[in-house]
Amino acid sequence: MKKLFLMTPGPTPVPEEIMLKMATPIMHHRTKEFKALFGETRNLLKKLFQTQNDVVIFASSGTGAMEASVSNLLEPQEKAIIINAGKFGKRWGELVKAFDGIPVELSYPYGDYAKVDDIKKAIDRNPDVKAVFIQASETSTGVFHPIDEIGTMLKESYPEVLFVVDGITAIGCMDIKTDQWGVDIMITGSQKALMLPPGLSMLSVSEKAKKKIKKSKNRHYYFDILKELNADGGAYTPAVKLVEGLHEVLLRLLEEGLENVFKRHALLASATREAAKALGLKLLAKRPADSLTAILTPIDSSKIINLMKSNGVFVSNGQGELKNRIIRIAHLGYFDKPDTLAAIGALEMALVKLGISIELGSGVKRAMEIFLEQ
Amino acid sequence: MKKLFLMTPGPTPVPEEIMLKMATPIMHHRTKEFKALFGETRNLLKKLFQTQNDVVIFASSGTGAMEASVSNLLEPQEKAIIINAGKFGKRWGELVKAFDGIPVELSYPYGDYAKVDDIKKAIDRNPDVKAVFIQASETSTGVFHPIDEIGTMLKESYPEVLFVVDGITAIGCMDIKTDQWGVDIMITGSQKALMLPPGLSMLSVSEKAKKKIKKSKNRHYYFDILKELNADGGAYTPAVKLVEGLHEVLLRLLEEGLENVFKRHALLASATREAAKALGLKLLAKRPADSLTAILTPIDSSKIINLMKSNGVFVSNGQGELKNRIIRIAHLGYFDKPDTLAAIGALEMALVKLGISIELGSGVKRAMEIFLEQ
Repeated sequence: MKKLFLMTPGPTPVPEEIMLKMATPIMHHRTKEFKALFGETRNLLKKLFQTQNDVVIFASSGTGAMEASVSNLLEPQEKAIIINAGKFGKRWGELVKAFDGIPVELSYPYGDYAKVDDIKKAIDRNPDVKAVFIQASETSTGVFHPIDEIGTMLKESYPEVLFVVDGITAIGCMDIKTDQWGVDIMITGSQKALMLPPGLSMLSVSEKAKKKIKKSKNRHYYFDILKELNADGGAYTPAVKLVEGLHEVLLRLLEEGLENVFKRHALLASATREAAKALGLKLLAKRPADSLTAILTPIDSSKIINLMKSNGVFVSNGQGELKNRIIRIAHLGYFDKPDTLAAIGALEMALVKLGISIELGSGVKRAMEIFLEQ
Repeated sequence: MKKLFLMTPGPTPVPEEIMLKMATPIMHHRTKEFKALFGETRNLLKKLFQTQNDVVIFASSGTGAMEASVSNLLEPQEKAIIINAGKFGKRWGELVKAFDGIPVELSYPYGDYAKVDDIKKAIDRNPDVKAVFIQASETSTGVFHPIDEIGTMLKESYPEVLFVVDGITAIGCMDIKTDQWGVDIMITGSQKALMLPPGLSMLSVSEKAKKKIKKSKNRHYYFDILKELNADGGAYTPAVKLVEGLHEVLLRLLEEGLENVFKRHALLASATREAAKALGLKLLAKRPADSLTAILTPIDSSKIINLMKSNGVFVSNGQGELKNRIIRIAHLGYFDKPDTLAAIGALEMALVKLGISIELGSGVKRAMEIFLEQ
């Protein structure tokens, strides 16, 4: 018996029936059947993204779509503001440099979130800035940046600046209003809230972004947004089985109702946060996302993680400077209340085994109280 | 009843047991279990590639690995010879241009193959050429370029020129000797002879190529060969289920024995070619690959393809200027004698229905004779 609850913020578990759906025979990508499925999937993604903009699908991990947004939008020597408040924010800076752009970096301590005024001031100091690159949910810290406020400020004060949001651990988990918040490019990946194996990335692209892309000449080929927009069934061979899985998952999420999907994630996240507090633990994120909860640990977190794993629950360690200082418990995707109770229980047992003084059961009890209140 | 024999040169059918193997729960890519599997898979790929060089795996379709070889090797304004004898050869030119290199294009009529002397002369005219980019098997025409002769010539006369081969429809199908033929970068994809769904590309990289990559500064990020070489379990989230499938498939091919795998493909290809001739049809390729057979059709090939499909066998049309002029029947991957007989039979029935005068059964009979001779 080796049953493992995978509770990492990506990859996340795939529902068994979706796995079996993807285990069916291969559909050729140039048939009208696949083209219809691909087009329908792109349309369903618009609903998930809460956008009227077109959505494209790449065969790549999420970083591929991040690269596409940089290499398609920016010309060499163009400036972009990047928000670095974690490992994935740092990646925006690396990407802008890799494509010879000039990153204007706003750094925040890990656990903190971007302030709308800082961005405003940075644009005022750098009026030639072409775009702002940010995460919605920074997966390395569990922080939710105020995308709504930043988007509203940009629309009002700097309508020519493009707004690019990595929603890899936010889309399909939290209520992200792509169009209402003025997001020009919104990005996500398959292995998070979309409950699929890794291998697909997706992005939506506004008319404003398309205009800039048409003018920009930067080196890229595989990640060509305009080519994908015009390609019936994908510019290059799509990851056909994952696309079929995506189609199924989207139907399922829309049947649950996006509002209910968001409420489910909010409930699991809230219960986990309250349980951690009840156990006397501190949360890392000053403005927590509902996709995952990062909990500061009183001792080397790898010891806690190993014990939790031996009890059948696999959560993530911190990354970079947060390594061995936090655990990260996922809520995004194919999770419900029992998974959350299992994770908190495994955490409590690990703490007791490691001699940390807690009241055994107080975390699980607090989570159940939250669930019962709903 | 809607049973369809998928006999296109990619995607190709996936064995049922491999599909089910990939339908198992997700393994996290940062666990020691996955890292071990990933490392073992990379080692098995070296056997398949017949190389001592390291192999990296990208989450992308085959074009991603083609891009990686161009963007990692070439600097802007550097020259490369590209062999354009079909749709995929043309892609090399597009890629070199996209990354600001200068393609020195050698064009051949579709159906023809690259001549070693032409390449020699082209290098003599352009002594600053840094690399030669070519297909092993050009999937759009079914031609097998003389990679052995070209590689030998380059090693002897121009040891500083890099040799990059797109083996997407050759590796795992034909006897491609990466090291012996001096191939610096050899490329393949998952959805061809490797019998997997699309979504993975792979390449091997020589020490000579690594040295050039280290000196080159071109814009790239996701497709970073050196970063992948040093990343334990992948630089970015790998397509974990496809990697698990790849591991299984490689064990299976190595158990069959590469020599037997190549013989099987050669036999199916030879039977198909002889059957086509017995039916009075002409072959497109002057130097045919064993991965697929391109047959010139006396009438609009789309009519033949539609009728074949209605009889349960799906083959490919031509691409670009070959559209509606040929059919392409695949041999690469999860195919054996019965599939080949089925394809030839469906072709014969379609020809008869369309009023083309053939001796019904003569193609299938000729193929069976070839099989019986073995």
